[in-house]
Amino acid sequence: MADYRPGLNELPTYSVEEREWEIKIDANESSFNLPPLVQERLMNRLAGLAFNRYPDIGMKGLKEQIAGNFQLRSDNVLIGNGSSEILEKLFHAYGGGGRSIVFPAPSFSMYDIYAKLSESRAIPVQLESDYSLRPDKVLAAARDSAAKLIVLCTPNNPTGNAMEEQDIEYIVQQAGCPVVVDEAYIEFHGRSAVDLLNRYANVMIARTFSKAYGFASARIGYLIAAADIVAMLGKICMPYHVNALSLAGAEIIYQMRNEFAPYIQQTIGERRQLAAALEELPGVTVYSSVTNFLLVKFTQAGRVAAVLAEHGIGVRDFSSVPGLIDCLRISIGTPAQNDRVLKIITGCRERG
Amino acid sequence: MADYRPGLNELPTYSVEEREWEIKIDANESSFNLPPLVQERLMNRLAGLAFNRYPDIGMKGLKEQIAGNFQLRSDNVLIGNGSSEILEKLFHAYGGGGRSIVFPAPSFSMYDIYAKLSESRAIPVQLESDYSLRPDKVLAAARDSAAKLIVLCTPNNPTGNAMEEQDIEYIVQQAGCPVVVDEAYIEFHGRSAVDLLNRYANVMIARTFSKAYGFASARIGYLIAAADIVAMLGKICMPYHVNALSLAGAEIIYQMRNEFAPYIQQTIGERRQLAAALEELPGVTVYSSVTNFLLVKFTQAGRVAAVLAEHGIGVRDFSSVPGLIDCLRISIGTPAQNDRVLKIITGCRERG
Repeated sequence: MADYRPGLNELPTYSVEEREWEIKIDANESSFNLPPLVQERLMNRLAGLAFNRYPDIGMKGLKEQIAGNFQLRSDNVLIGNGSSEILEKLFHAYGGGGRSIVFPAPSFSMYDIYAKLSESRAIPVQLESDYSLRPDKVLAAARDSAAKLIVLCTPNNPTGNAMEEQDIEYIVQQAGCPVVVDEAYIEFHGRSAVDLLNRYANVMIARTFSKAYGFASARIGYLIAAADIVAMLGKICMPYHVNALSLAGAEIIYQMRNEFAPYIQQTIGERRQLAAALEELPGVTVYSSVTNFLLVKFTQAGRVAAVLAEHGIGVRDFSSVPGLIDCLRISIGTPAQNDRVLKIITGCRERG
Repeated sequence: MADYRPGLNELPTYSVEEREWEIKIDANESSFNLPPLVQERLMNRLAGLAFNRYPDIGMKGLKEQIAGNFQLRSDNVLIGNGSSEILEKLFHAYGGGGRSIVFPAPSFSMYDIYAKLSESRAIPVQLESDYSLRPDKVLAAARDSAAKLIVLCTPNNPTGNAMEEQDIEYIVQQAGCPVVVDEAYIEFHGRSAVDLLNRYANVMIARTFSKAYGFASARIGYLIAAADIVAMLGKICMPYHVNALSLAGAEIIYQMRNEFAPYIQQTIGERRQLAAALEELPGVTVYSSVTNFLLVKFTQAGRVAAVLAEHGIGVRDFSSVPGLIDCLRISIGTPAQNDRVLKIITGCRERG
């Protein structure tokens, strides 16, 4: 009776531990709630919302703001339920029927699931041992597989490093297909590939409100791309797919995004301090990061994660994932949280 | 360069007029904002939300409430971005590769788009001239096309009538495939097919918060089904696909759903009054409705819609849609709005 679409049974489930942590540094969320002034404006806006009405289907308010910031037009902007929905739809639009999509590995684990869900052929390109991505390998993989889409993730999750701008441009220039640059963590790095849009019709930039802007609850992301691409993706997105409460919040956050600069700077400062302190410990390798998290390699990584968990601290354990063996991903928390994490890991190391 | 998934170029765009109406009765929304007490609790809840955190991935709070109401378990409930997302995922799960999906016509216009988007074969079953749906025609269409999914919509949008309970059961019983009953308007009718779940493993019920519960802004819907179906659909839904703001609101609304009974009763009363008054007019046929809208056939329907529009009143114009020729769909508004609509239509008729 349950005759599902072929291949669906093999689709993996994205599993997330549902445990409630005292210190939750496993999902690269912002460790701060929205700034009080932003929250106040959000609550005022929501108090006046017509909850009984469908959202603005055109989402003009937010699109115009984002477009304006990049000297683009509203029809260059697509809004989605997080950049997740946008990436899912991109895989759908360019994939299907075994058509190939190229993406780095290790990177955001959902790329592989989006490929399976869209019935595309996943072509992962392995990062080098220092987690850099070689442009020639990307282009060769795309050429050999007649790829319909290349996904880049920079800064890369979970490795924390960013691609060189000239490498991104080289890929975009040489690729015979569209290239989407997933810039989920770009605000911590500051050097976006967005200017390439002026020179190349095949580049797209995906962004999110879930990281630097501390609005993961609302699931808002956006894509900046050529108008014909945005129009095509718009057809795949269901009408009213983005709710009005999240949209209202995103509009206010985007207007007030300068308010987030101090948090971003503090996170960067904390990341540097934590990285420097961890590097002093025996059996610890800290990978260079330009994000709000650190990828850290430990001898006995599983034990470190277990000890942290005993103390109510949740980190993301990649210790048995190929390419990330012995690694934990630690999101940057508040200063007090980072101190506590460092203290527990130090204790762990001292006890050997 | 833009080498999209085959068939995507032919995908239609769901078009909605974006004009701002003084009286907006074109989308079957509730004409009332949330009751003040509900709104107050929602605002209090949002004021305490950790906006920086991803939503509860398990959505336990809402699932447990809904399951409890139907004496079911949480794993019988799937939450989505409106019942739209749930229906889209159902078409994806059971369709694809030209597999057939049966649904009534005329009915919710998105079914046809979901079929195209999921690369399924759409098998519309025409309603009779009184807009009833013949179960034997549904079953024959399903059998002849080896359908993988049957969709029923009751009460049906945009015709407003409901199926007989024994007809639904007969289809569920005889069908060799899963049957989803889209009950978007069920609260205005009161007679759900949900009890069939106890007797048939292949029946699913889709519901929404967008109509009777006046929460269209938030895009929350749910499916009640066997646990294995919910688990499979859960794999297709992206992690964190439903945002925390809408979820918080839905939890409160569901807890306080009795607060909506007076609005529902008032809407039903207003619908009856408006239907009776319209029926008195020359050149007007009002179809029997158990929803919050009326399907009305006019001689010169296009002219009626135009005159209403001149007065800032937006209705849904189906007058050139096959099966709905000369018909407008008029959502029930506030008493004052309904009076105004009646007055303008009456004027229209008198002037011939």
